[in-house]
Amino acid sequence: MAPQLDAYFKQVDTLAESFIERLRKAVAIPSVSAEDERRPEVIRMGKFLQAELEALGCSVEARELGKEPQREHLDLPPVIVARYGSDSKKRTILVYGHYDVQPANLEDGWATQPFELTVDDKGRMFGRGSTDDKGPVLGWLNAIEAHQKAGVDFPVNLLMCFEGMEEYGSEGLDDFIAAEADKYFKDADAVCISDNYWLGTEKPCLTYGLRGCNYYSVEVSGPGQDLHSGVFGGTVQEPMTDLVRVMAQLVDTDGKILVPGINEMVAPLTDDEKALYGDIAFTMDNLYESLGSKTGIFPDKEKTLMARWRYPSLSLHGIEGAFSAPGGKTVIPAKVTGKFSIRTVPNMEPAKVNEAVFKYVNDVFKKLGSKNSLKVWNNHDGRWWVASPNHWNFTAAGKAVERVWGVKPDLTREGGSIPVTLTFEESLKKNVLLLPMGSSTDAAHSINEKLDRRNYIEGTKLLGAYLHYVAEEPTGA
Amino acid sequence: MAPQLDAYFKQVDTLAESFIERLRKAVAIPSVSAEDERRPEVIRMGKFLQAELEALGCSVEARELGKEPQREHLDLPPVIVARYGSDSKKRTILVYGHYDVQPANLEDGWATQPFELTVDDKGRMFGRGSTDDKGPVLGWLNAIEAHQKAGVDFPVNLLMCFEGMEEYGSEGLDDFIAAEADKYFKDADAVCISDNYWLGTEKPCLTYGLRGCNYYSVEVSGPGQDLHSGVFGGTVQEPMTDLVRVMAQLVDTDGKILVPGINEMVAPLTDDEKALYGDIAFTMDNLYESLGSKTGIFPDKEKTLMARWRYPSLSLHGIEGAFSAPGGKTVIPAKVTGKFSIRTVPNMEPAKVNEAVFKYVNDVFKKLGSKNSLKVWNNHDGRWWVASPNHWNFTAAGKAVERVWGVKPDLTREGGSIPVTLTFEESLKKNVLLLPMGSSTDAAHSINEKLDRRNYIEGTKLLGAYLHYVAEEPTGA
Ligand SMILES: [Zn+2]
Ligand SMILES: [Zn+2]
Repeated sequence: MAPQLDAYFKQVDTLAESFIERLRKAVAIPSVSAEDERRPEVIRMGKFLQAELEALGCSVEARELGKEPQREHLDLPPVIVARYGSDSKKRTILVYGHYDVQPANLEDGWATQPFELTVDDKGRMFGRGSTDDKGPVLGWLNAIEAHQKAGVDFPVNLLMCFEGMEEYGSEGLDDFIAAEADKYFKDADAVCISDNYWLGTEKPCLTYGLRGCNYYSVEVSGPGQDLHSGVFGGTVQEPMTDLVRVMAQLVDTDGKILVPGINEMVAPLTDDEKALYGDIAFTMDNLYESLGSKTGIFPDKEKTLMARWRYPSLSLHGIEGAFSAPGGKTVIPAKVTGKFSIRTVPNMEPAKVNEAVFKYVNDVFKKLGSKNSLKVWNNHDGRWWVASPNHWNFTAAGKAVERVWGVKPDLTREGGSIPVTLTFEESLKKNVLLLPMGSSTDAAHSINEKLDRRNYIEGTKLLGAYLHYVAEEPTGA
Repeated sequence: MAPQLDAYFKQVDTLAESFIERLRKAVAIPSVSAEDERRPEVIRMGKFLQAELEALGCSVEARELGKEPQREHLDLPPVIVARYGSDSKKRTILVYGHYDVQPANLEDGWATQPFELTVDDKGRMFGRGSTDDKGPVLGWLNAIEAHQKAGVDFPVNLLMCFEGMEEYGSEGLDDFIAAEADKYFKDADAVCISDNYWLGTEKPCLTYGLRGCNYYSVEVSGPGQDLHSGVFGGTVQEPMTDLVRVMAQLVDTDGKILVPGINEMVAPLTDDEKALYGDIAFTMDNLYESLGSKTGIFPDKEKTLMARWRYPSLSLHGIEGAFSAPGGKTVIPAKVTGKFSIRTVPNMEPAKVNEAVFKYVNDVFKKLGSKNSLKVWNNHDGRWWVASPNHWNFTAAGKAVERVWGVKPDLTREGGSIPVTLTFEESLKKNVLLLPMGSSTDAAHSINEKLDRRNYIEGTKLLGAYLHYVAEEPTGA
């Protein structure tokens, strides 16, 4: 039986302006976690959220995480945890979001003041944090308020976890989630995160997979200090020459990873999975538009999406220690460190990837016959994540999307990582759903970040509808 | 007939302390040409020189070069030109030096105040500019003074050209020299520059050759802006991958230049030239000490010196536009520019080197089959220089070294460039001699720069003795 949602939806429409007002207040707090001098604003934003949640009748706690490691003059902003409802006959859903934002300055090229929500005649609501992630976070609050004012029973118990350091490494969050898995979060039946984006601008999606990332440094050193190329060029084996030759043998122009063993670790493509890609709302023009060029590797969308979602990739990011400024300098750098990373997918084991990379890099270097020294190490690895899209958490969300937006959502994966996803899955052992509110053109992390009014208001309906379908979805599905 | 030099030498010894006092005054003026706020100190140093020269009876002019191009708020320091003597029966020697210095701050690791000349018990006189180039410049003044006080006739007419921008690109100097070639400098019969160093610490040298330098940028671009490797890795041809693959094909670990045609341009090694290298006072341990490592390409000094002096080399300096900071960043840079340079030697024509480089780089890139764009260009080229060591200017200097130091000097070339050398040769069409005063351990451009008291005092004797031998050396030699 489909849930009765009309009264709720109508109330969301009635409250739309006040919901936008709530977002305006949130955007006005420049809660930039990366900037020391704005750390108090992050904490102020946490207090704002806490007050809003309390006003809605939630029980709220601001959990302190202490000082920032290595930067002890700074307090970490608290994790705001909250509970709305504790009816043991209802399912309990844990939702996550973050209340900090990326840096933003008018001088970077913003068309409007970044910390003043500015709505244009197309309903685009510009402002830092509008889509990442204040809009989605407030969507949950809006959903509670609309239920209350419409007199509709809230269908689940809602646990909320809103952090203030996401844009600066989520310092302390993993430990917090692990510690609370059996405590504050112990009732959670499933997790929902609204902190990513539609693949395009028209069709909603549910996201069930993310690639992981193994990040590497490879250092070549020899001379005791930087040398002048006039004096020493031609007489010394140059670390930069060796490093560039090693880096050139990691990946080719068409993205093929040259490290033996890596491609063999990838889960084979089944016919079932292959069939999924054709229907995804994505075109090569979407790719070219986001690239700003036509320098894609594959000519078709299927191969492109597979390359983004289900195959590994290797990118060379840069070199530390070499000359990197504009102009010319005739230095022979004494020690240079190349940076590269491999995006990982099922069934790549991070440790085995490391092993293959270390062996190959050392082998390639050995063949150069250099007297310089090479070291290669892993800076960090974040595992890939894939959830079952057949879980009730996903089928409920799919039905809610169809109800609100009138289309079946695309089931997508993403090329990047959202580390907290895996943390929740591993700590709570529950299904995690990524349910985006914003669209691909929202420019999170860029200038002129925005959230469309439609995505915010229909998105608020979607979050509420999702909870209703969650309440009805049979466990077996 | 050997010149009568005893009275002059004795007078130099007598005046040694006052010569050191003169150097102390000069070092105390922090004439750092690279620092805006110290530009007035450079000008003050010019005035100091002018006053000292006038006190010695020279006719002196401070020639203004106007404002610094692109930085019009700064005056260029004047070129101090001076003449001592104008006897048409004497030869006229033009000497060059610079009165500006490299930056220096105690915090960089200086053991003493950089702008206070500090003499230790081994006679090492520490201070910025002591050896580069205030000591040698004052050496000429000391020589004049000692002649006067010893009552010895000055053997030549001396033209002096002392600039104040050498450490910051010699802005305006080339044009000045070209313009004065037929005017202030028109009487010059030969040029002597004391602004380089012995190859080691015990044996003086005369330098007759310098390598040139062709500097290149190779830019690969594709996407309209930097991309996130999670989202785009595997779907786009990455400029950094292409650039690294191109750079890896320019030179190998043992310094072999892989650009076709370059090595063929090098003047063949004759048996005569080959025979010269064995006697040079240089050991592989000298190389290893200056490298701070044993990562040299060649096992013997002959090949090492040839590689430094008479063969070209190619060094990769770095990449602009890629990630170059410490830590990890998962960026796909949209546009990256590799920097490399080729040290050139006889008979490489800069234009032909450019042609070979441009063709090869484009060919290599074409073979990658990339949709990205590549541009390669020459940033600047400075020609190599080789003088005839059989010219009377050199034979006179050789005799003077033997007289003062008791050994025949090594005839050396240098791997780096001293652009003013070529400017004097090309503008005046006269033989140019590089006659160093300091030794290889003087740390010019580094912390704890010094000039040994012995090199300063005996070096002053040498400059004077050189002028006496010049006066007697037959033209035919
Ligand atoms: Zn976010
Ligand atoms: Zn110098």
